[in-house]
Amino acid sequence: MTVTIDPDASFLDSALADLATYTDDSFDGWTREVLSDPYRASREVVANRMRQAGMEVHIDAGGNVVGRLPGRAAASGVNLKPLMTGSHTDTVRNGGRFDGIVGVLGAIEAVEALRRAGIELERDLVVVDFLGEEPNEFGISCMGSRSMAGVLTPEHLELPGTSGITLGKALERYGVDPNRALKNSWGPDSVHAYIELHIEQGPMLERAGTQIGVVTAIAGIDRLLARFTGRADHAGATPMDARQDALTCAAAAVLAVEREGCGAPVHGVATTGRIEAFPGSFNVVPQEARIYAELRSTDAAWLNGAKRRVADEIAAEAERRGVAQMVEWLTDQDPVPTTPALRDHIAAASGDLGLSWMAVPSGAGHDAAHMVHMGPMGMIFIPSVGGRSHCPEEFTDTRDIVEGVRVLAATLVRLDRTDKIAA
Amino acid sequence: MTVTIDPDASFLDSALADLATYTDDSFDGWTREVLSDPYRASREVVANRMRQAGMEVHIDAGGNVVGRLPGRAAASGVNLKPLMTGSHTDTVRNGGRFDGIVGVLGAIEAVEALRRAGIELERDLVVVDFLGEEPNEFGISCMGSRSMAGVLTPEHLELPGTSGITLGKALERYGVDPNRALKNSWGPDSVHAYIELHIEQGPMLERAGTQIGVVTAIAGIDRLLARFTGRADHAGATPMDARQDALTCAAAAVLAVEREGCGAPVHGVATTGRIEAFPGSFNVVPQEARIYAELRSTDAAWLNGAKRRVADEIAAEAERRGVAQMVEWLTDQDPVPTTPALRDHIAAASGDLGLSWMAVPSGAGHDAAHMVHMGPMGMIFIPSVGGRSHCPEEFTDTRDIVEGVRVLAATLVRLDRTDKIAA
Repeated sequence: MTVTIDPDASFLDSALADLATYTDDSFDGWTREVLSDPYRASREVVANRMRQAGMEVHIDAGGNVVGRLPGRAAASGVNLKPLMTGSHTDTVRNGGRFDGIVGVLGAIEAVEALRRAGIELERDLVVVDFLGEEPNEFGISCMGSRSMAGVLTPEHLELPGTSGITLGKALERYGVDPNRALKNSWGPDSVHAYIELHIEQGPMLERAGTQIGVVTAIAGIDRLLARFTGRADHAGATPMDARQDALTCAAAAVLAVEREGCGAPVHGVATTGRIEAFPGSFNVVPQEARIYAELRSTDAAWLNGAKRRVADEIAAEAERRGVAQMVEWLTDQDPVPTTPALRDHIAAASGDLGLSWMAVPSGAGHDAAHMVHMGPMGMIFIPSVGGRSHCPEEFTDTRDIVEGVRVLAATLVRLDRTDKIAA
Repeated sequence: MTVTIDPDASFLDSALADLATYTDDSFDGWTREVLSDPYRASREVVANRMRQAGMEVHIDAGGNVVGRLPGRAAASGVNLKPLMTGSHTDTVRNGGRFDGIVGVLGAIEAVEALRRAGIELERDLVVVDFLGEEPNEFGISCMGSRSMAGVLTPEHLELPGTSGITLGKALERYGVDPNRALKNSWGPDSVHAYIELHIEQGPMLERAGTQIGVVTAIAGIDRLLARFTGRADHAGATPMDARQDALTCAAAAVLAVEREGCGAPVHGVATTGRIEAFPGSFNVVPQEARIYAELRSTDAAWLNGAKRRVADEIAAEAERRGVAQMVEWLTDQDPVPTTPALRDHIAAASGDLGLSWMAVPSGAGHDAAHMVHMGPMGMIFIPSVGGRSHCPEEFTDTRDIVEGVRVLAATLVRLDRTDKIAA
């Protein structure tokens, strides 16, 4: 059977442009943070597009927009595990128009393209717009996929936000019952396979001139908050050798974090995203400083070593400077390898379509990392221009999105026809 | 004539404690920022204490509380240039109870002690509580002494504050006519001598076990704002070699500033008091960063060299990292030597009183630095416990304050009896 699956470039263009209008104009770029008003409105649009594509749509207990396209088996009364795809439509502050969004709108267009090609799947296809994938004011990412995967915890709900209320309270105000969100788990082996289409958010595909990335693993993340306590002294009257300067110590820590990333032998990065120093006057030696940093790698052994080395370097620097320090590890996510059989299917589908592909790591986290609790998991990357992401300049060419959707649809067809996927 | 000048320890203690109650409780420590409500109230207290000490008090066009104790010459119709002393009663945020305050209350107690000792000065003695000596939200310090010295400019009045109004507007709201403040100059050679008593705010007197510091010079200050513009990228997906990280560049600049201070051959310090990085998320490589730093020294040649070296190091670091940088020099105050003849008088008065003294630089700026436009200028330092200042722990023992007031009073007597002070 040779069937051509042809995603509609103009649909994708207009749907992306339409969703980009639902943003908070008080920030640069395209800002649609989870639980915000623009976010609520945009998800109505997503739900309507799912319905137009023939899906049954509901909001699940975890706040996910879930569309289901019934397969032929269900009509015949045969119960098969569904296929699942999706991503998220929230953005970081000052973010872009493609991160996550391409995976949701692309999945809807895959459904449309399959219908136009006259392909009906045996299995139900579930398309999910997961609630709040990006890190938020509560310090948690992937809220919806955690809920569905059964890894959202009561502790998460107690996380305080910058506005003074807990995550649980904020979810409640948004209309998600936090207690129900804890009991939203599909359970293990509940899906036949989960495949997510996403922009790479890095430069490797573009650098290599390759159209499709077959993701090997999602990097583990170790986030740390390092606090430094020195002594506030008059910046004019206190000799250099009598100081306990929290900020110079924090600056040295920022460079130690960077060095660790630069020394990573495989995919490994280390970033300080935020720094604070107090009291913050020209003429006072800083008494307190904090850095918020993270280490990421697909290599668990390197991550563990890097954690230890960074903590040791920070301790040594602080000791040398007479500054007190405390390193707190805030998150500790292990790397999540994709399911090898799914990598093969994505690569084969790409090859069949005449597209170039390569194996790539995912430095960014994704809802997919939690979907492994429900079954086999795979990811398809498409190029990001200049490797840019989480910024207004984030861009992926429509031609690349079309090819990504084509590979997604073709892979779903392949998986639909595969009875058993090796774990 | 052997007369004993005995400052009253209990007056100094209670006056300091009383003034410390006029503070803004929403901050730690003792916070009485210029133009605030507690500041306005506390200056009424100061004015009343001046009146109780026999002074005629008025608020001058620059917002200074000016007390005048008429001398004997005036009563005889002889016109002599007055002696002047004073300091300030505003504090930095989270500051202490002694910085500036000791110089104002100490001057009032010197007047009382002279009276108790039966000493009448020939010359008028002017005691000034200068308006707003500490750096404020408008980025200007020593507002009152600048006004009196004729170095407050229309440009200063246009400086924007963090609350959105200009300094001129803020002064107007406080009750100081900004146009009159520009015309408040006493002119050159208008005072016989200006002497300021102040806590050292550094550790040198305490380290040396010395009671009195004879200030040689007030350090010059060069303040800089360095801005770094890199590129916001996804912190997980962007390889280390593809980054333009504004924060790591800023961190390197912080350490370059510190190195410059540590390498100073004479009194020289270099401090980064404030740092900012944006957007400030864990998962975004910082696009923008800023550091606010300053170099201080009593050595003008070193300061000029340090400015150039710091700017060069920042430029080289940014170049290496592909980050754009811009260094803006915000203030450029030359070092101000004290008048040698006044150093000699302070030292001689200390020696006569049997007190140990040493020559010390002033790393901190003072109203005295502007008083040189009006005549000879000198400063008396007393020890700061642990060298602490601009923090709640700032402390000077009452016994040391008493000795400082004693030296101030004795020096005023000496100067009163000196017809001509060499410039």
